[in-house]
Amino acid sequence: MKKITVSIIGATGYSGKELIRILLKHSQVELMHLVSASYAGKKIAEIFPDFLNQLDRELIALNVDMISQDSDLVFTALPHTVSMDIVPDLLKKRGMKVIDLSADFRLKDPADFTDWYQKEHGEKSKLLLKEAVYGLPELYFREIKNALLVANPGCYPTSAILGIAPLLLYHLVKPQGIIIDSKSGTSGAGRKLSLGLHFTECNESFKAYKCLRHNHIPEIEQELTLMYNRQKQQSKKESIKISFTPHLLPVSRGILSTCYLDLKHGYGNEEILKVYKKFYQGAPFVRLFDPPSLPEIMFATKTNYCDIGFAIDQRMGKIKVISVIDNLTKGASGQAVQNMNIMFGFPEESGLI
Amino acid sequence: MKKITVSIIGATGYSGKELIRILLKHSQVELMHLVSASYAGKKIAEIFPDFLNQLDRELIALNVDMISQDSDLVFTALPHTVSMDIVPDLLKKRGMKVIDLSADFRLKDPADFTDWYQKEHGEKSKLLLKEAVYGLPELYFREIKNALLVANPGCYPTSAILGIAPLLLYHLVKPQGIIIDSKSGTSGAGRKLSLGLHFTECNESFKAYKCLRHNHIPEIEQELTLMYNRQKQQSKKESIKISFTPHLLPVSRGILSTCYLDLKHGYGNEEILKVYKKFYQGAPFVRLFDPPSLPEIMFATKTNYCDIGFAIDQRMGKIKVISVIDNLTKGASGQAVQNMNIMFGFPEESGLI
Amino acid sequence: MKKITVSIIGATGYSGKELIRILLKHSQVELMHLVSASYAGKKIAEIFPDFLNQLDRELIALNVDMISQDSDLVFTALPHTVSMDIVPDLLKKRGMKVIDLSADFRLKDPADFTDWYQKEHGEKSKLLLKEAVYGLPELYFREIKNALLVANPGCYPTSAILGIAPLLLYHLVKPQGIIIDSKSGTSGAGRKLSLGLHFTECNESFKAYKCLRHNHIPEIEQELTLMYNRQKQQSKKESIKISFTPHLLPVSRGILSTCYLDLKHGYGNEEILKVYKKFYQGAPFVRLFDPPSLPEIMFATKTNYCDIGFAIDQRMGKIKVISVIDNLTKGASGQAVQNMNIMFGFPEESGLI
Amino acid sequence: MKKITVSIIGATGYSGKELIRILLKHSQVELMHLVSASYAGKKIAEIFPDFLNQLDRELIALNVDMISQDSDLVFTALPHTVSMDIVPDLLKKRGMKVIDLSADFRLKDPADFTDWYQKEHGEKSKLLLKEAVYGLPELYFREIKNALLVANPGCYPTSAILGIAPLLLYHLVKPQGIIIDSKSGTSGAGRKLSLGLHFTECNESFKAYKCLRHNHIPEIEQELTLMYNRQKQQSKKESIKISFTPHLLPVSRGILSTCYLDLKHGYGNEEILKVYKKFYQGAPFVRLFDPPSLPEIMFATKTNYCDIGFAIDQRMGKIKVISVIDNLTKGASGQAVQNMNIMFGFPEESGLI
Repeated sequence: MKKITVSIIGATGYSGKELIRILLKHSQVELMHLVSASYAGKKIAEIFPDFLNQLDRELIALNVDMISQDSDLVFTALPHTVSMDIVPDLLKKRGMKVIDLSADFRLKDPADFTDWYQKEHGEKSKLLLKEAVYGLPELYFREIKNALLVANPGCYPTSAILGIAPLLLYHLVKPQGIIIDSKSGTSGAGRKLSLGLHFTECNESFKAYKCLRHNHIPEIEQELTLMYNRQKQQSKKESIKISFTPHLLPVSRGILSTCYLDLKHGYGNEEILKVYKKFYQGAPFVRLFDPPSLPEIMFATKTNYCDIGFAIDQRMGKIKVISVIDNLTKGASGQAVQNMNIMFGFPEESGLI
Repeated sequence: MKKITVSIIGATGYSGKELIRILLKHSQVELMHLVSASYAGKKIAEIFPDFLNQLDRELIALNVDMISQDSDLVFTALPHTVSMDIVPDLLKKRGMKVIDLSADFRLKDPADFTDWYQKEHGEKSKLLLKEAVYGLPELYFREIKNALLVANPGCYPTSAILGIAPLLLYHLVKPQGIIIDSKSGTSGAGRKLSLGLHFTECNESFKAYKCLRHNHIPEIEQELTLMYNRQKQQSKKESIKISFTPHLLPVSRGILSTCYLDLKHGYGNEEILKVYKKFYQGAPFVRLFDPPSLPEIMFATKTNYCDIGFAIDQRMGKIKVISVIDNLTKGASGQAVQNMNIMFGFPEESGLI
Repeated sequence: MKKITVSIIGATGYSGKELIRILLKHSQVELMHLVSASYAGKKIAEIFPDFLNQLDRELIALNVDMISQDSDLVFTALPHTVSMDIVPDLLKKRGMKVIDLSADFRLKDPADFTDWYQKEHGEKSKLLLKEAVYGLPELYFREIKNALLVANPGCYPTSAILGIAPLLLYHLVKPQGIIIDSKSGTSGAGRKLSLGLHFTECNESFKAYKCLRHNHIPEIEQELTLMYNRQKQQSKKESIKISFTPHLLPVSRGILSTCYLDLKHGYGNEEILKVYKKFYQGAPFVRLFDPPSLPEIMFATKTNYCDIGFAIDQRMGKIKVISVIDNLTKGASGQAVQNMNIMFGFPEESGLI
Repeated sequence: MKKITVSIIGATGYSGKELIRILLKHSQVELMHLVSASYAGKKIAEIFPDFLNQLDRELIALNVDMISQDSDLVFTALPHTVSMDIVPDLLKKRGMKVIDLSADFRLKDPADFTDWYQKEHGEKSKLLLKEAVYGLPELYFREIKNALLVANPGCYPTSAILGIAPLLLYHLVKPQGIIIDSKSGTSGAGRKLSLGLHFTECNESFKAYKCLRHNHIPEIEQELTLMYNRQKQQSKKESIKISFTPHLLPVSRGILSTCYLDLKHGYGNEEILKVYKKFYQGAPFVRLFDPPSLPEIMFATKTNYCDIGFAIDQRMGKIKVISVIDNLTKGASGQAVQNMNIMFGFPEESGLI
């Protein structure tokens, strides 16, 4: 079986580590270069002893030419606003494919990016925005199949969009007043030094944060808006806006989003479940929970599943959707590998089940 | 300084334990009887070694006559539907006061109780419903002062009601579509054996539960409805309904409720904060957070504070209120002691700060 | 590739669940029957929603004939003193192989079993003691290869024995005064209802338990004694005794054992490391840490590794050995699958890496 | 009741925060200056919102003259090797008293300090070593009463020394081969930025660290040696050495030390317990557990107790002592307040029970 060569830029953050963890078990991948600005020259197992006896590889400094030369695919797992300057050079090599785990290529409108991330796209990266495919396979399988550049979705957006996309596509809910109350484990905040992420500061606690302007908002709204208007005949596009509140959970991994939407008259559990089943038919990583059963974070930990359950609050005319993922797997690196599988024609589950 | 004699029925649940912890430091209380059906005959420090060297007392079986004879005040910290059969007998003694920590006397309409708790009030306890005062001191200080029977509020209701009562009283928000997304630590579920509360089953996890019919709903709706209609001139009463979702947090203590309401036109942070300050003037246990600062569970752990913060989501026309308490303290036993202080003319903070 | 048929008796405890988790990824295994006394008739994914979409199988009641008929191998993952009555009947079928995860067949001397487990072996199970092989592959690879009945080691014994066996085999330490201070996550205590295992009772805490008579002691002593006397010429056998203290860690999975031994004169890090490397040559699941690096529980979580590090305390003439495993994997079900691989001639790592 | 004025230098570390928490409830203390190099100019409640509505005080930069002018007592809660340069100047004011929570004045031999802390005492601080009293009230009550400078013990030393001092004083154990296996919560590591203390890095994990040269070793050995030789007639002093292994527990607060000593012939539970009771007679903060009951970390959390239990391992001729404290309370700030109470003639428990 022919293998593809894969490199990771940003191998020593949590997404990079999770990519390595998954790819080590992937039979069609040969891991080439692991790039780390902070730890170049060290062995990966010195940084993550988890990989002792599994991967004997030295971390290297960024060298775009060498990496694109040696790789069929590069994962860029870098902080936001860093990838945008590297990806265009990587893609110069003919046939090269890139999956970018940052936010840099997720927003289609560069003005949105500037607004939410306080940095402007350069000329070269701005051009790429048109080519970049939003890497949510349950929505964009065909586009991903042919993509050269995949913008891997954010963790909160993955849980939120997958959780409620079917309701919006089929207009089962009102498009106004959508509330997404999300709770994430600490690995979602990355591996940078931060007092607020110290064990003593978040253990036995819980808090909301970035309550008004979390930069996953435009990404969620962009996709929900596209979904809602997909089947619409009329010319006027409805813009979906959400009220989003992220919270920090004292667990290492996992996101649970509780979404509240106004359900249109009279739908019951069976009809809703049927719609979800239809929407996610053939999607190997979405698991639907029959009411009244509901997903919990631990069911999905260290898996690439998105677990979805719902409850219809007839007293209020609302539907509550509970959507759970592992933020590092389906919310980042697992989804990136799922995208890779699709891009290279491997079985979608390879290395992930 | 004269002391009152106090007994606890249900001393070996978490609320009972927390009552003891607090009362041991209360200079005006003499702890009399500690009643435990499960552990009668054992020393309290055998059940809770926390009390070693602090309280050398044997747990006894329930003896209503002896207890009412020896006590000025009895706390009943029993499972729901158990107190209702005991409290009427306790109150037969002239001058006796009771603070009931269960739900049995919280709902004014006995039909509501039957509906949500699947048990009917007996004749004697039904009569008491009229006398019982809902023990939320920030709302009912004067009524509590003169009460013989206080129905101590539930943990979720305390956080939810205190969090949004000012907005409803002054009609700053629409009364429809209120969402309360609450997250509670495990001690809220009590000390009964339950596989779902095992460490291995809830550690590193998070879940929603009783998504549609948690029995704290009628209590919250009753109080919010009263609050909303308090200053209303018109005859027609508006019934407040809420969409309530409790979640289980992997922490031992604490509740954080994220409340979403539709804010009426144009209010800003300063106006809202002013309203809260006015409403909670003189309330020693409510702490208001200036935007953008927000409360976190750990700030209130093992205290009797209710910490409240908010954020105005102008994009959506919504206000998000974050309300935090320790479910065992302000959410149960601390509030019960606060009620006791008020009922006996002690300083409201005695034993609690 | 031909598959073997495998059944699990005791499928709904934590070891049973972990067996299923591992075997689902094992390409040479076909899962046949899943037996559960408590949940017969239910689907496995109703008990463990982790398996949703992965395994659609109904739990059945115990039926020895059918199970032995349909299986090449049976894992018995039952409480101690239960397997001893079932295994003899299973083994009546010619060619049947059994891996027992309980303690029932670990102690070679039935009197020891009676002493530590308060139950006597019956005639049939007593006979099996001679056939049973102690399933620690790093010590008994050849015996396991030919075994019909493997007694899968306990979790604490696995960490302790692997941690210090090389030191005893080569007589680098004194055989007296060995101290093993072990710390285990909560899943080690199983899934039976127990107040002490409630989240609120063990979260944010830590304790020693069964400080004098934990029933893993005879198992550890039996194996260390065999190891110490293996290369001894003299007739007199030295009996190894240990001082063992288990503690309960507030983590779900993992054991770390800190072992203290009196090191004989003058050995340094290099010599010791060389001895360990020689001893564990070819053992795919032992990872040795170069001093001063040491293993941590999280490095081995959800893996079948036993991670070993050490530090020589020259001031005291002692060596401290730190040995880490995941109690459910290398300490139970992973090791059981490793044994299965050896018994059936599969690659030792199949399904485990 | 006359109050003393108290200042804290180093108010924004965990020990400083805990000092404030305790002193706020101490009726004989007026909190004067709170010094913080990092946060001068901010309100204390901005750094620790726990203190909202409780303490409205601005943090100031260090000003030795003003502080000593305004204070009867100063707590120095600074990193090791920082206090030594400040304390001599503070003590220049006649009558001033200082309790230093760092290690700077704990070791009587300045050469030991240099050896373990890699810094030399200056002339002025070296002179103070003779005056400094080791602030373990259960051992040095009288000396503390008259001290001007108290060197508040380390957290591990407090648990270890209190745990086994009685055994050494009465020579019930052999003085060789003592093993102290300690486990501490994360707050013991302080509030400095450190990747290893991030939630994601220590949650669900456990590790040994500083396995050979933790700088609490000389402190423990100094005190145990003094204890062992206290009642000795013979001229030759026996030096006690220990094998000490600290571990990092995934809890916020608490230390549990498991100590292993060789018990001399024939002592039983009753005799040992009697010795402990005699030794700790009148000590309000030591709680002794009757065998087979043993202390757990949660029993002592947020208290100033040192909880001690033991088990005699007759098979091995060893005694295991389990000693538990809260590292921030009895292991630091609570003990500091206990020392303050003794130095100023307040009841020993003031503010602490």
